[in-house]
Amino acid sequence: MSVVSSIDYILTRRSIRRYENKDITQDVLQQILEAGRQAPSAANRQPVRFVVVNDRDLLKILCDTLITRFVKYAPAAIVGCADVKSLLTGKWAVVDATIAMENMVIAAWTLGVGSCWIGACNEEKVKELLEIPDKWKVVALVTLGYPAEHPKPRKKKSFEEMFSFNSF
Amino acid sequence: MSVVSSIDYILTRRSIRRYENKDITQDVLQQILEAGRQAPSAANRQPVRFVVVNDRDLLKILCDTLITRFVKYAPAAIVGCADVKSLLTGKWAVVDATIAMENMVIAAWTLGVGSCWIGACNEEKVKELLEIPDKWKVVALVTLGYPAEHPKPRKKKSFEEMFSFNSF
Repeated sequence: MSVVSSIDYILTRRSIRRYENKDITQDVLQQILEAGRQAPSAANRQPVRFVVVNDRDLLKILCDTLITRFVKYAPAAIVGCADVKSLLTGKWAVVDATIAMENMVIAAWTLGVGSCWIGACNEEKVKELLEIPDKWKVVALVTLGYPAEHPKPRKKKSFEEMFSFNSF
Repeated sequence: MSVVSSIDYILTRRSIRRYENKDITQDVLQQILEAGRQAPSAANRQPVRFVVVNDRDLLKILCDTLITRFVKYAPAAIVGCADVKSLLTGKWAVVDATIAMENMVIAAWTLGVGSCWIGACNEEKVKELLEIPDKWKVVALVTLGYPAEHPKPRKKKSFEEMFSFNSF
Protein backbone atom coordinates (compact mmCIF):
# COMPACT_ATOMS: atom_id res chain seq x y z
CA MET A 1 0.00 0.00 0.00
CA SER A 2 1.22 3.42 -0.88
CA VAL A 3 0.74 6.66 1.01
CA VAL A 4 0.63 8.46 -2.33
CA SER A 5 -2.99 8.61 -3.39
CA SER A 6 -3.84 7.64 -6.94
CA ILE A 7 -4.76 11.14 -8.01
CA ASP A 8 -1.36 12.36 -6.81
CA TYR A 9 0.29 10.20 -9.47
CA ILE A 10 -1.47 12.31 -12.06
CA LEU A 11 -0.68 15.61 -10.35
CA THR A 12 2.99 14.89 -9.65
CA ARG A 13 3.84 13.40 -13.02
CA ARG A 14 6.56 15.35 -14.85
CA SER A 15 8.04 14.92 -18.31
CA ILE A 16 11.35 13.11 -17.90
CA ARG A 17 14.13 13.58 -20.44
CA ARG A 18 17.09 12.09 -18.55
CA TYR A 19 17.06 8.43 -17.68
CA GLU A 20 19.06 5.98 -15.65
CA ASN A 21 21.00 3.47 -17.71
CA LYS A 22 18.65 0.69 -16.72
CA ASP A 23 16.31 -1.37 -18.84
CA ILE A 24 12.64 -1.67 -18.07
CA THR A 25 11.82 -5.25 -17.19
CA GLN A 26 9.37 -7.13 -19.34
CA ASP A 27 6.97 -7.40 -16.40
CA VAL A 28 6.88 -3.65 -15.82
CA LEU A 29 6.61 -2.92 -19.53
CA GLN A 30 3.74 -5.37 -19.81
CA GLN A 31 1.83 -3.57 -17.05
CA ILE A 32 2.34 -0.23 -18.78
CA LEU A 33 1.13 -1.57 -22.12
CA GLU A 34 -1.87 -3.24 -20.49
CA ALA A 35 -3.00 0.20 -19.29
CA GLY A 36 -3.01 1.27 -22.92
CA ARG A 37 -4.82 -1.83 -24.06
CA GLN A 38 -7.65 -1.19 -21.58
CA ALA A 39 -8.19 2.40 -22.73
CA PRO A 40 -11.60 3.41 -24.02
CA SER A 41 -12.02 4.16 -27.72
CA ALA A 42 -14.86 5.40 -29.90
CA ALA A 43 -17.41 2.56 -30.11
CA ASN A 44 -14.65 0.33 -28.67
CA ARG A 45 -13.20 0.02 -32.20
CA GLN A 46 -9.56 0.42 -31.07
CA PRO A 47 -8.13 1.77 -34.35
CA VAL A 48 -4.71 1.94 -32.76
CA ARG A 49 -1.42 0.12 -32.75
CA PHE A 50 1.73 0.78 -30.80
CA VAL A 51 5.27 -0.06 -31.80
CA VAL A 52 7.45 -0.48 -28.74
CA VAL A 53 11.05 0.33 -29.61
CA ASN A 54 13.44 -1.14 -27.04
CA ASP A 55 16.35 -2.14 -29.24
CA ARG A 56 19.09 0.30 -28.28
CA ASP A 57 20.55 0.53 -31.77
CA LEU A 58 17.14 1.12 -33.27
CA LEU A 59 16.44 3.82 -30.68
CA LYS A 60 19.57 5.65 -31.82
CA ILE A 61 18.43 5.54 -35.43
CA LEU A 62 14.91 6.57 -34.40
CA CYS A 63 16.40 9.49 -32.56
CA ASP A 64 17.88 10.79 -35.80
CA THR A 65 14.38 11.10 -37.23
CA LEU A 66 13.22 13.27 -34.34
CA ILE A 67 13.85 16.89 -33.49
CA THR A 68 14.29 15.85 -29.89
CA ARG A 69 17.73 14.47 -29.04
CA PHE A 70 17.20 12.69 -25.74
CA VAL A 71 15.36 9.67 -27.13
CA LYS A 72 18.60 7.78 -27.67
CA TYR A 73 19.18 7.74 -23.92
CA ALA A 74 15.79 6.20 -23.14
CA PRO A 75 15.62 2.41 -22.79
CA ALA A 76 12.30 2.34 -24.64
CA ALA A 77 9.85 4.41 -26.64
CA ILE A 78 6.29 3.78 -27.71
CA VAL A 79 5.30 4.93 -31.18
CA GLY A 80 1.56 5.54 -31.29
CA CYS A 81 -0.19 4.83 -34.58
CA ALA A 82 -3.80 5.58 -35.56
CA ASP A 83 -5.82 4.14 -38.42
CA VAL A 84 -6.95 7.57 -39.61
CA LYS A 85 -7.88 6.54 -43.14
CA SER A 86 -10.59 4.09 -42.14
CA LEU A 87 -14.06 5.45 -42.91
CA LEU A 88 -15.38 3.70 -39.81
CA THR A 89 -12.78 4.74 -37.27
CA GLY A 90 -10.75 7.51 -38.85
CA LYS A 91 -12.52 10.47 -37.30
CA TRP A 92 -11.60 9.61 -33.72
CA ALA A 93 -8.47 7.53 -34.25
CA VAL A 94 -6.05 10.26 -33.15
CA VAL A 95 -8.07 10.83 -29.98
CA ASP A 96 -8.25 7.07 -29.37
CA ALA A 97 -4.49 6.64 -29.72
CA THR A 98 -3.81 9.63 -27.47
CA ILE A 99 -6.12 8.34 -24.72
CA ALA A 100 -4.30 4.99 -24.71
CA MET A 101 -0.89 6.68 -24.63
CA GLU A 102 -1.79 8.90 -21.68
CA ASN A 103 -3.04 5.80 -19.87
CA MET A 104 0.39 4.28 -20.43
CA VAL A 105 2.16 7.48 -19.33
CA ILE A 106 0.27 7.56 -16.04
CA ALA A 107 0.62 3.81 -15.50
CA ALA A 108 4.37 4.15 -16.06
CA TRP A 109 4.64 6.91 -13.46
CA THR A 110 2.84 4.80 -10.85
CA LEU A 111 5.52 2.14 -11.49
CA GLY A 112 8.38 4.61 -11.12
CA VAL A 113 8.97 4.92 -14.86
CA GLY A 114 9.29 8.39 -16.34
CA SER A 115 8.14 9.40 -19.79
CA CYS A 116 8.04 12.26 -22.23
CA TRP A 117 5.57 12.93 -25.02
CA ILE A 118 7.19 13.74 -28.35
CA GLY A 119 5.21 15.10 -31.24
CA ALA A 120 7.79 16.48 -33.64
CA CYS A 121 9.21 13.83 -35.94
CA ASN A 122 9.84 13.12 -39.57
CA GLU A 123 6.79 10.92 -39.93
CA GLU A 124 7.80 9.39 -43.25
CA LYS A 125 11.19 8.35 -41.91
CA VAL A 126 9.69 6.90 -38.72
CA LYS A 127 7.22 4.91 -40.80
CA GLU A 128 9.95 3.63 -43.08
CA LEU A 129 12.21 2.68 -40.17
CA LEU A 130 9.51 0.79 -38.29
CA GLU A 131 7.74 -0.58 -41.37
CA ILE A 132 4.50 1.17 -40.49
CA PRO A 133 2.01 0.77 -43.36
CA ASP A 134 1.08 3.89 -45.26
CA LYS A 135 -2.51 4.13 -44.02
CA TRP A 136 -1.45 4.53 -40.39
CA LYS A 137 -0.66 7.94 -38.95
CA VAL A 138 2.10 8.36 -36.37
CA VAL A 139 0.25 10.35 -33.71
CA ALA A 140 3.10 10.85 -31.26
CA LEU A 141 5.86 9.04 -29.40
CA VAL A 142 6.35 8.51 -25.71
CA THR A 143 9.73 7.69 -24.20
CA LEU A 144 10.00 5.44 -21.15
CA GLY A 145 12.84 5.24 -18.63
CA TYR A 146 13.73 5.43 -14.96
CA PRO A 147 14.11 9.12 -14.05
CA ALA A 148 17.62 10.54 -13.63
CA GLU A 149 16.21 14.01 -13.02
CA HIS A 150 13.50 15.54 -10.86
CA PRO A 151 12.06 18.44 -12.82
CA LYS A 152 10.14 21.17 -11.03
CA PRO A 153 6.49 21.68 -11.91
CA ARG A 154 5.93 23.63 -15.13
CA LYS A 155 3.97 26.83 -15.02
CA LYS A 156 0.38 26.17 -16.02
CA LYS A 157 -2.41 28.47 -17.08
CA SER A 158 -4.58 29.59 -14.21
CA PHE A 159 -7.76 27.74 -13.40
CA GLU A 160 -9.75 30.63 -14.86
CA GLU A 161 -7.77 30.62 -18.10
CA MET A 162 -8.30 26.92 -18.63
CA PHE A 163 -11.82 26.33 -17.35
CA SER A 164 -15.16 28.06 -17.50
CA PHE A 165 -18.63 27.02 -16.43
CA ASN A 166 -21.63 26.67 -18.73
CA SER A 167 -20.22 29.08 -21.31
CA PHE A 168 -16.83 29.57 -22.93
CA MET B 1 -4.80 4.65 2.19
CA SER B 2 -6.42 2.46 -0.39
CA VAL B 3 -5.81 -1.19 -1.10
CA VAL B 4 -6.50 -0.51 -4.75
CA SER B 5 -3.17 0.28 -6.37
CA SER B 6 -2.95 3.30 -8.61
CA ILE B 7 -2.52 1.33 -11.79
CA ASP B 8 -5.69 -0.60 -10.99
CA TYR B 9 -7.68 2.62 -11.31
CA ILE B 10 -6.61 2.75 -14.92
CA LEU B 11 -7.28 -0.93 -15.56
CA THR B 12 -10.68 -1.06 -13.88
CA ARG B 13 -12.08 2.14 -15.30
CA ARG B 14 -15.22 1.61 -17.37
CA SER B 15 -17.31 4.02 -19.41
CA ILE B 16 -20.36 4.92 -17.31
CA ARG B 17 -23.59 5.96 -18.99
CA ARG B 18 -26.02 5.71 -16.05
CA TYR B 19 -25.56 8.00 -13.11
CA GLU B 20 -26.96 8.47 -9.63
CA ASN B 21 -29.09 11.56 -9.23
CA LYS B 22 -26.39 13.26 -7.19
CA ASP B 23 -24.37 16.35 -7.95
CA ILE B 24 -20.60 16.37 -7.90
CA THR B 25 -19.40 18.64 -5.12
CA GLN B 26 -17.28 21.62 -6.02
CA ASP B 27 -14.33 20.13 -4.12
CA VAL B 28 -14.39 16.87 -6.06
CA LEU B 29 -14.91 18.68 -9.36
CA GLN B 30 -11.97 20.94 -8.59
CA GLN B 31 -9.69 17.94 -8.04
CA ILE B 32 -10.77 16.40 -11.33
CA LEU B 33 -10.13 19.63 -13.23
CA GLU B 34 -6.77 20.12 -11.54
CA ALA B 35 -5.67 16.77 -13.01
CA GLY B 36 -6.45 18.23 -16.42
CA ARG B 37 -4.67 21.49 -15.67
CA GLN B 38 -1.47 19.63 -14.77
CA ALA B 39 -1.42 17.61 -18.01
CA PRO B 40 1.60 17.88 -20.27
CA SER B 41 1.24 19.67 -23.61
CA ALA B 42 3.53 20.28 -26.58
CA ALA B 43 6.16 22.79 -25.45
CA ASN B 44 3.89 23.41 -22.43
CA ARG B 45 1.82 25.78 -24.59
CA GLN B 46 -1.55 24.50 -23.29
CA PRO B 47 -3.70 25.42 -26.32
CA VAL B 48 -6.75 24.05 -24.57
CA ARG B 49 -9.83 25.22 -22.77
CA PHE B 50 -12.58 23.25 -21.12
CA VAL B 51 -16.17 24.28 -20.64
CA VAL B 52 -17.70 22.52 -17.66
CA VAL B 53 -21.43 22.20 -18.11
CA ASN B 54 -23.17 21.55 -14.82
CA ASP B 55 -26.37 23.50 -15.26
CA ARG B 56 -29.03 20.81 -15.54
CA ASP B 57 -31.17 22.75 -18.02
CA LEU B 58 -28.15 23.48 -20.19
CA LEU B 59 -27.15 19.80 -20.08
CA LYS B 60 -30.57 18.88 -21.47
CA ILE B 61 -30.14 21.32 -24.34
CA LEU B 62 -26.57 20.14 -24.90
CA CYS B 63 -27.87 16.59 -25.08
CA ASP B 64 -30.05 17.54 -28.04
CA THR B 65 -26.90 18.43 -29.99
CA LEU B 66 -25.37 15.01 -29.42
CA ILE B 67 -26.09 11.65 -30.94
CA THR B 68 -25.74 10.14 -27.49
CA ARG B 69 -28.84 10.45 -25.31
CA PHE B 70 -27.55 9.78 -21.81
CA VAL B 71 -25.82 13.12 -21.32
CA LYS B 72 -28.96 14.70 -19.91
CA TYR B 73 -28.80 12.33 -16.95
CA ALA B 74 -25.23 13.25 -16.04
CA PRO B 75 -24.73 15.97 -13.42
CA ALA B 76 -21.84 17.44 -15.42
CA ALA B 77 -19.98 17.25 -18.70
CA ILE B 78 -16.65 18.67 -19.79
CA VAL B 79 -16.43 20.03 -23.32
CA GLY B 80 -12.83 19.89 -24.51
CA CYS B 81 -11.70 22.64 -26.89
CA ALA B 82 -8.43 22.94 -28.80
CA ASP B 83 -6.91 26.01 -30.42
CA VAL B 84 -6.28 24.17 -33.69
CA LYS B 85 -5.98 27.26 -35.88
CA SER B 86 -2.95 28.71 -34.12
CA LEU B 87 0.20 28.39 -36.24
CA LEU B 88 2.21 27.88 -33.07
CA THR B 89 0.08 25.30 -31.30
CA GLY B 90 -2.39 24.02 -33.85
CA LYS B 91 -0.58 20.85 -34.90
CA TRP B 92 -0.72 19.21 -31.48
CA ALA B 93 -3.74 20.91 -29.95
CA VAL B 94 -6.09 17.95 -30.37
CA VAL B 95 -3.53 15.64 -28.74
CA ASP B 96 -2.97 18.17 -25.94
CA ALA B 97 -6.69 18.47 -25.21
CA THR B 98 -7.12 14.69 -25.27
CA ILE B 99 -4.25 14.12 -22.84
CA ALA B 100 -5.79 16.57 -20.37
CA MET B 101 -9.23 14.97 -20.72
CA GLU B 102 -7.92 11.47 -20.07
CA ASN B 103 -6.14 12.81 -17.00
CA MET B 104 -9.50 14.10 -15.79
CA VAL B 105 -11.24 10.82 -16.64
CA ILE B 106 -8.75 8.80 -14.58
CA ALA B 107 -8.74 11.33 -11.75
CA ALA B 108 -12.53 11.17 -11.66
CA TRP B 109 -12.49 7.38 -11.38
CA THR B 110 -10.07 7.49 -8.44
CA LEU B 111 -12.62 9.77 -6.73
CA GLY B 112 -15.53 7.42 -7.45
CA VAL B 113 -16.85 9.50 -10.34
CA GLY B 114 -17.68 7.73 -13.59
CA SER B 115 -17.30 9.20 -17.03
CA CYS B 116 -17.89 8.54 -20.68
CA TRP B 117 -16.06 9.95 -23.68
CA ILE B 118 -18.34 11.31 -26.39
CA GLY B 119 -17.08 12.23 -29.80
CA ALA B 120 -20.14 12.49 -31.98
CA CYS B 121 -21.81 15.87 -31.74
CA ASN B 122 -23.09 18.67 -33.92
CA GLU B 123 -20.03 20.81 -33.38
CA GLU B 124 -21.53 24.02 -34.72
CA LYS B 125 -24.52 23.75 -32.39
CA VAL B 126 -22.34 22.95 -29.37
CA LYS B 127 -20.18 26.00 -30.15
CA GLU B 128 -23.21 28.23 -30.53
CA LEU B 129 -24.80 26.96 -27.31
CA LEU B 130 -21.65 27.43 -25.22
CA GLU B 131 -20.42 30.56 -27.02
CA ILE B 132 -17.20 28.87 -28.11
CA PRO B 133 -15.29 31.18 -30.49
CA ASP B 134 -14.97 30.02 -34.07
CA LYS B 135 -11.23 29.29 -33.98
CA TRP B 136 -11.59 26.63 -31.30
CA LYS B 137 -12.34 23.01 -32.21
CA VAL B 138 -14.55 20.88 -30.00
CA VAL B 139 -12.38 17.78 -29.62
CA ALA B 140 -14.71 15.66 -27.54
CA LEU B 141 -16.94 15.69 -24.47
CA VAL B 142 -16.65 13.75 -21.27
CA THR B 143 -19.61 13.19 -18.96
CA LEU B 144 -19.14 12.99 -15.20
CA GLY B 145 -21.38 11.37 -12.62
CA TYR B 146 -21.57 8.84 -9.82
CA PRO B 147 -22.03 5.38 -11.38
CA ALA B 148 -25.47 3.77 -11.27
CA GLU B 149 -24.21 0.80 -13.28
CA HIS B 150 -21.26 -1.55 -13.16
CA PRO B 151 -20.43 -2.46 -16.74
CA LYS B 152 -18.39 -5.55 -17.48
CA PRO B 153 -15.02 -5.14 -19.18
CA ARG B 154 -15.25 -4.57 -22.93
CA LYS B 155 -13.53 -6.98 -25.26
CA LYS B 156 -10.16 -5.58 -26.29
CA LYS B 157 -7.80 -6.50 -29.07
CA SER B 158 -5.19 -9.03 -28.04
CA PHE B 159 -1.81 -7.89 -26.89
CA GLU B 160 -0.34 -9.07 -30.20
CA GLU B 161 -2.91 -7.16 -32.25
CA MET B 162 -2.24 -3.93 -30.41
CA PHE B 163 1.51 -4.04 -29.76
CA SER B 164 4.62 -5.03 -31.63
CA PHE B 165 8.29 -4.65 -30.82
CA ASN B 166 10.81 -2.72 -32.91
CA SER B 167 8.76 -3.05 -36.10
CA PHE B 168 5.10 -2.67 -36.98
